Amino acid sequence: MKQDTALIIIDMINKMDFDGGEYLLEHTLPMTERLHSFKKELKEEGLPVIYVNDNFELWQDNVSDLIDECKKGRGEPVIEQILPDEDDYFIIKPKHSGFFGTQLSILLEHLEVRNLILTGIAGDICVLFTANDAYMREYDIWVPEDCVASEQEDDNENALKIIRRSLFAETGKSTEVDRNEVFSH
Amino acid sequence: MKQDTALIIIDMINKMDFDGGEYLLEHTLPMTERLHSFKKELKEEGLPVIYVNDNFELWQDNVSDLIDECKKGRGEPVIEQILPDEDDYFIIKPKHSGFFGTQLSILLEHLEVRNLILTGIAGDICVLFTANDAYMREYDIWVPEDCVASEQEDDNENALKIIRRSLFAETGKSTEVDRNEVFSH
Amino acid sequence: MKQDTALIIIDMINKMDFDGGEYLLEHTLPMTERLHSFKKELKEEGLPVIYVNDNFELWQDNVSDLIDECKKGRGEPVIEQILPDEDDYFIIKPKHSGFFGTQLSILLEHLEVRNLILTGIAGDICVLFTANDAYMREYDIWVPEDCVASEQEDDNENALKIIRRSLFAETGKSTEVDRNEVFSH
Amino acid sequence: MKQDTALIIIDMINKMDFDGGEYLLEHTLPMTERLHSFKKELKEEGLPVIYVNDNFELWQDNVSDLIDECKKGRGEPVIEQILPDEDDYFIIKPKHSGFFGTQLSILLEHLEVRNLILTGIAGDICVLFTANDAYMREYDIWVPEDCVASEQEDDNENALKIIRRSLFAETGKSTEVDRNEVFSH
Repeated sequence: MKQDTALIIIDMINKMDFDGGEYLLEHTLPMTERLHSFKKELKEEGLPVIYVNDNFELWQDNVSDLIDECKKGRGEPVIEQILPDEDDYFIIKPKHSGFFGTQLSILLEHLEVRNLILTGIAGDICVLFTANDAYMREYDIWVPEDCVASEQEDDNENALKIIRRSLFAETGKSTEVDRNEVFSH
Repeated sequence: MKQDTALIIIDMINKMDFDGGEYLLEHTLPMTERLHSFKKELKEEGLPVIYVNDNFELWQDNVSDLIDECKKGRGEPVIEQILPDEDDYFIIKPKHSGFFGTQLSILLEHLEVRNLILTGIAGDICVLFTANDAYMREYDIWVPEDCVASEQEDDNENALKIIRRSLFAETGKSTEVDRNEVFSH
Repeated sequence: MKQDTALIIIDMINKMDFDGGEYLLEHTLPMTERLHSFKKELKEEGLPVIYVNDNFELWQDNVSDLIDECKKGRGEPVIEQILPDEDDYFIIKPKHSGFFGTQLSILLEHLEVRNLILTGIAGDICVLFTANDAYMREYDIWVPEDCVASEQEDDNENALKIIRRSLFAETGKSTEVDRNEVFSH
Repeated sequence: MKQDTALIIIDMINKMDFDGGEYLLEHTLPMTERLHSFKKELKEEGLPVIYVNDNFELWQDNVSDLIDECKKGRGEPVIEQILPDEDDYFIIKPKHSGFFGTQLSILLEHLEVRNLILTGIAGDICVLFTANDAYMREYDIWVPEDCVASEQEDDNENALKIIRRSLFAETGKSTEVDRNEVFSH
């Protein structure tokens, strides 16, 4: 079945070994299970899943090494719940936006994807930056608010507000939004 | 005198003929005079001034036509106060970020600029998008809060909060901040 | 009539005031009339025409100034024959490829163009660089050999050979090639 | 020791399972040993080595899988001689130029590299495309002619001619050129 929508999972393979990482972990752990179920539902419908993940200063483009390295950090319990499957796509990004210095645009063109469901962490940094870049590239965007987290709840809320207001994107919950309505056009 | 800082003026040549343009005009008019004085002060010190401006659906890269077209709209009183001088740089952008689909990076490299003072409208859209892209390209950023405006004041505040929090950028007033301190490194 | 093909005219607004410019002029003058007729034919069929042109160290994005400046140089007799019409698109580029630091991709997306007829000068520099970038972006390409020129004929031939061999592009003459066959797919 | 020069090794991890791959293998095998020795010499001097390699339709950014996959093809004897060391950088590219859709620019900036020694295959495609993009980004370039190969020798020669003529790059042999002279400026 041809699909023009993809699930993007941002920075969930995360060492969280920075200042404030403990708050990010606190807000990410509760949503990881939901994101994992959501991923399973979408894969059953045939949607491609694309991990887009920080390189954590490794520049060897080797996902297995990256996962091993990140597991050494605070984010290990998150990582264990959301490991990529063999048939998931994986893009290592060097900066905040998933589109900057990566093959994401080219992969999406290759898959003929036009609609993006953006999930992951942190909502007010890498998810927001990726959403901005997606919007300028004319993708339609949905950021399910129960599948993103930030260090601080009000910063997360602010980012979602910007995403709704400036990017005209849907931010309703993964359990409540009808995907066909969001992306009907 | 060699300068590694530039003043960026975003979308001030603006038709404001969209929904909500009346609110944007209301918040932009009062800050235009301040921005104009600030521009004069910085030029006297030898800093380059770079207008980065939406194309308003003109694709001929002709600034004089673009200004004429925009003057037909609601933003005319703003435009008259902040017209580019002959020795200002001017970059026409097709999308929200000043870096996307433009020569801005190349011009900044050519001028050996590393520090950006970002001003203009709208604070929660094109200024924010440009700030994000500047941050990923490792420029140091200052967004003087008395030289930006948005349609809604609280959206403007949100955007400034994101800029401070996620981009580690200075947002103090143009009249109060010591530029050398912001960009000392 | 919807058209998915555009004519790209590269660097014909050219000062030719560099070393070797006299040779470039010598090879460009004879093909300018042919390119001009070809442009007229294509416009009659409704195809968009996009000039993509070096900025000649002007950074004000003002086409009229750029044309005035270039007319001061050796290329003036070429420029007079191939001036842009009011309804032609014009993109000022800062470097060799028409795609690098410009809105060309965004304009082509906006026009829904997928096929490019690349013409202009110099065949072994800016035309070749633009062709490479077009190929990586998955455009189909035709470089009519009677509408390109370089300083040296054998360099021009080399570049056309690379374009045929490495980009799988058509290089037959504008008067002989059936456009529908080149771009049929 | 700080180094501003890097060795770039293009597409040597190569399945060569395409039409003409047998000719590419024939011309690549004899230069692989030379490239390997050159790599060793440069590493001893402290220069960073960056593999930039096609993804061969794998989109998982996992170098170990990519090497395993490529070893199944005709290029296996080349791969065995030029495997990346643990401390080499590795960038997976989706298209012909090493700069397109990759983090190469960002890594070079991070390493403070300004001079590139470009090697690998094929000389008339991916090496040429990468050289063009490097030139537009204002890197200084040396393409040692005894460390590149193409399917056809005359195409390889043509590409080197373009690189000398249009990119003003050095193309002398790895055994004869004084690196400090090429990059002295």
